[in-house]
Amino acid sequence: MKSSSFFFFLFFFLLLLSLSPPSSSIAEAKTHLLKWEIKYAFKSPDCFTKLVITINGLSPGPTITATQGDTIVVVVTNLLETENTAIHWHGIRQIGTPWSDGTGGVTQCPIQPGDTFVYKFVVDRPGTYMYHAHYGMQRSAGLHGMIRVMVPQETKEPFDYDYDRSIVVNDWWHKSAQEQAAGLAALNFGWVGEPQSLLINGRGKFINCSLAGANSNVCNISNPECSPAVITMIPGKIYRLRIISVSSLSAFNLELEGHNMTIVEADGSYVNPVAVKNLNIYSGESYSVLIKADQDPSRNYWVALNVVSRKPGTPTGTAILNYFSNHPSKSPPTRPPIGPSWNDVLYRFNQSLAIRSHPNYIEPPPRTSDRVIIFLNTQNKINGYVKWAVNNVSFTLPDTPYLIALKEKLTHVFSQKPAPETYDYKSYDIGIVQPNPNATTSNSLYKLDYGSTVDIILQNANTLNVNNSETHPWHLHGHDFWVVGYGLGKFDPESDPKRYNLVDPIKKNTVPLHPYGWTALRFRADNPGVWAFHCHVEAHFFMGMGVVFETGVEKVGRLPESILGCGKSKKHTSYP
Amino acid sequence: MKSSSFFFFLFFFLLLLSLSPPSSSIAEAKTHLLKWEIKYAFKSPDCFTKLVITINGLSPGPTITATQGDTIVVVVTNLLETENTAIHWHGIRQIGTPWSDGTGGVTQCPIQPGDTFVYKFVVDRPGTYMYHAHYGMQRSAGLHGMIRVMVPQETKEPFDYDYDRSIVVNDWWHKSAQEQAAGLAALNFGWVGEPQSLLINGRGKFINCSLAGANSNVCNISNPECSPAVITMIPGKIYRLRIISVSSLSAFNLELEGHNMTIVEADGSYVNPVAVKNLNIYSGESYSVLIKADQDPSRNYWVALNVVSRKPGTPTGTAILNYFSNHPSKSPPTRPPIGPSWNDVLYRFNQSLAIRSHPNYIEPPPRTSDRVIIFLNTQNKINGYVKWAVNNVSFTLPDTPYLIALKEKLTHVFSQKPAPETYDYKSYDIGIVQPNPNATTSNSLYKLDYGSTVDIILQNANTLNVNNSETHPWHLHGHDFWVVGYGLGKFDPESDPKRYNLVDPIKKNTVPLHPYGWTALRFRADNPGVWAFHCHVEAHFFMGMGVVFETGVEKVGRLPESILGCGKSKKHTSYP
Repeated sequence: MKSSSFFFFLFFFLLLLSLSPPSSSIAEAKTHLLKWEIKYAFKSPDCFTKLVITINGLSPGPTITATQGDTIVVVVTNLLETENTAIHWHGIRQIGTPWSDGTGGVTQCPIQPGDTFVYKFVVDRPGTYMYHAHYGMQRSAGLHGMIRVMVPQETKEPFDYDYDRSIVVNDWWHKSAQEQAAGLAALNFGWVGEPQSLLINGRGKFINCSLAGANSNVCNISNPECSPAVITMIPGKIYRLRIISVSSLSAFNLELEGHNMTIVEADGSYVNPVAVKNLNIYSGESYSVLIKADQDPSRNYWVALNVVSRKPGTPTGTAILNYFSNHPSKSPPTRPPIGPSWNDVLYRFNQSLAIRSHPNYIEPPPRTSDRVIIFLNTQNKINGYVKWAVNNVSFTLPDTPYLIALKEKLTHVFSQKPAPETYDYKSYDIGIVQPNPNATTSNSLYKLDYGSTVDIILQNANTLNVNNSETHPWHLHGHDFWVVGYGLGKFDPESDPKRYNLVDPIKKNTVPLHPYGWTALRFRADNPGVWAFHCHVEAHFFMGMGVVFETGVEKVGRLPESILGCGKSKKHTSYP
Repeated sequence: MKSSSFFFFLFFFLLLLSLSPPSSSIAEAKTHLLKWEIKYAFKSPDCFTKLVITINGLSPGPTITATQGDTIVVVVTNLLETENTAIHWHGIRQIGTPWSDGTGGVTQCPIQPGDTFVYKFVVDRPGTYMYHAHYGMQRSAGLHGMIRVMVPQETKEPFDYDYDRSIVVNDWWHKSAQEQAAGLAALNFGWVGEPQSLLINGRGKFINCSLAGANSNVCNISNPECSPAVITMIPGKIYRLRIISVSSLSAFNLELEGHNMTIVEADGSYVNPVAVKNLNIYSGESYSVLIKADQDPSRNYWVALNVVSRKPGTPTGTAILNYFSNHPSKSPPTRPPIGPSWNDVLYRFNQSLAIRSHPNYIEPPPRTSDRVIIFLNTQNKINGYVKWAVNNVSFTLPDTPYLIALKEKLTHVFSQKPAPETYDYKSYDIGIVQPNPNATTSNSLYKLDYGSTVDIILQNANTLNVNNSETHPWHLHGHDFWVVGYGLGKFDPESDPKRYNLVDPIKKNTVPLHPYGWTALRFRADNPGVWAFHCHVEAHFFMGMGVVFETGVEKVGRLPESILGCGKSKKHTSYP
């Protein structure tokens, strides 16, 4: 470990020199040493007691708070009895540290029970991010939390606020991640169904609590663990709410009753402020919104979380917007907002269009791209198993992580068959169930020329069910992309690129693909490594909805030994 | 793998030459190649549907049938999504193949998801054995099955029978192994409670099925998966029933209504035949009994499985003893036998005493031993956590398996503090709750001189509850032991050894320690390797009730690379 420590030190020192914008902050850049124990515990987030994967006893895990340029060192000890794990730092590009991306099967071997693994990376940009398990379906078991990266004290942000608060939203099932995964993987496909509850900051309320079990050990509505989350506001003050969705499945609409909000940040980029009544947020997205405590201070208001895009089978998730000095648990005299109609695609589509870069922070995209890849998003069957696929290829993870395989030149680890660049867009009817939904599986990857500009067009289509197309929030590891266009219907490679927004597109790491629509992204493949790009719906990625990009892997430094130890790297011995 | 294959070949060839008794059988010795996929599946063994770990879709897994001297090759692919595994071949001594013992943390690193691991070993003795997961609490999740080793055709056994049948008994919970383990490991100790059902050949009946869930997907009494097991007999014929208990917790009494049985085999040793009304069988034990189909052939009879030693909270498990040509599902007109009183220790004690070697197969034990180790069995507290311990030391597994650590001379892997040889038997009162139940944890081991004779005295005591002492079935890996004595009360090192049975003691690998009693074992430490010796109650071993013996590890051949890859052996690179 001695030599790798030195390497880390040297590397991060150089990185800090090159990245930290104001030179004065170099001296202040801190290293945050976090010690995390990953362990199962019985928790009652929605009053129903079940096994949850916790970090130091918590789910959501502890919020990581740091300042731009700081180094985060997370010493993760896996105290699960039989399960491995891996943690992804979602939105952190891991420039120079691709082995710290935490993507099981892509950038590292998983952390075995009893083992301690060290993640070390620089948070080079301010903004709101998240972390979560990226192994099996462990994210849905509760292993997730928020990352808040502050600007250095002397740096001004393009908006003002008095206080800064966090909102973590997700959906919650009473079945275990193992049960969910086993159902999805079975020939006799078993779907866990809509979530039992929606959680705000890890708290919700299961409405059928009294039916759930014979005794109050199983579900107890008075358990303090499931008392509603409270956001207290001082009248007249302005609050920045940092919101992340670690949702497994659901697309959400978040409404703060009686308060408009102004979207000012998306995935770490400053947004040209947009005032909205409510916010659509998709799994893997993060936003900052400003709200002013300018309503009747004698009462409390609802924070309301509603499912959109799927027909809701779950009651509104609620928290309390508490005007000081009302009692935090004082129920608002009103009913919680029910949000927009769940199937109002246009409403969500238009909000997506409205998220553009703040004029003072525009980073103009390249005018042209070097390569265009079109990804048709479909639900398929493979040998009778239900799968998701892009271009009729359902993704599978190799046993040996790509980063290791490529750097250490291990062969026969993944398919060398080229992955498809497009689909037959001239004849394909996105509005109907595919006449032949059969697909193939593959673990081949897309090799992107280092430094090249790549356009990705995500094309949605009908699922295996008539008149059904789902929302897919796609997340790119290791890079942000410019969101250059959204459309409804089928993307036309001739005409649609002419309408791309190359003026003020927002840079994000996660973007929705709306039902029957398309989303166009542009990014520069300038971060050496191997990077997953996938639908952030946990079940969809689990069932094959993703791809892997490799770029400039020859520029990646010597891999830490600690990421080795599975598949062909189990016996790999290049580190004497 | 080339060189290790050659090594295996050479090794087993030599082994076969040396071990197979009749020279004619050498030519006939077969290799059985088994391909197993380990996977979660939803199963309804007692009509309640839950996630079960299956082998090729089955739980219990496929029965391994082979002839003495055959080689078994089991190619295990772990298709669990996030969990590792390891499989122990219980009763197989693994002479020359200690790395195939399948004990996670002792003889191998666990098999990671997606990996394939090859177990290869010779079944050198005829008899009835079993296999099961030996990692976390996966045995209780359903990963277990029977091994039947036949005598070569020309070899005569000391009893006659017409047909040979299998009975696998165990207890069954609706909570997952993860839930059980998390409760046991929690500061706020959570006990899963008594089993919901008792299973015979993987089938039982949950009596509260209709209360279990809102719909018949959760529990359906007409599910064919939970129709009772049937053992069909032709009137007048003699049946050999091979019985194994893979119970997690419960001690059992098995009764075949209206039929006495004659015990003829115990853990692979021939027994001086004992006729019994019913058989007490403890977790990890195997027996063969003979029964004659000599009752009223116009009706069926019950096979009844009852809990003993713990106050039963679970209804009798039943199967059908079906007289041909009655319909197999024809219910017997009687009530199932309820077995002996659950707390009749003397009844069970006397049956233990009655199990002695068949006179024609006596292998006399050494007259004296080189070392005597006394193991006081207690329930303890460590920093508030409930634990089990021997001599007030609660066992923990190191991250790096002992066999690897010792062979590869990895240091600081486990404690070098000597493990205690005895307890303060002069002053200790086994009949009361310990005034100071505090214990320590340790992963130190017992080094036994190679070839030496060791006496082990297991001494039972009161648990943390007043007037309570449990039954602990202790299982030794890699060796059989002679059962030289049982006693009730406190073992006296002066007088009790004088009453040891050195004439016709049975050789076993698993033996009960009765409440408030003692059990004395003698064995020759003649199998080079590292071997667990532990209580076979899964929760008890999980909570620290075990030790590890090392002997002659310097004689162990080069380890297969495939067992490496965890703890300090993750980075171990002695295999270029």
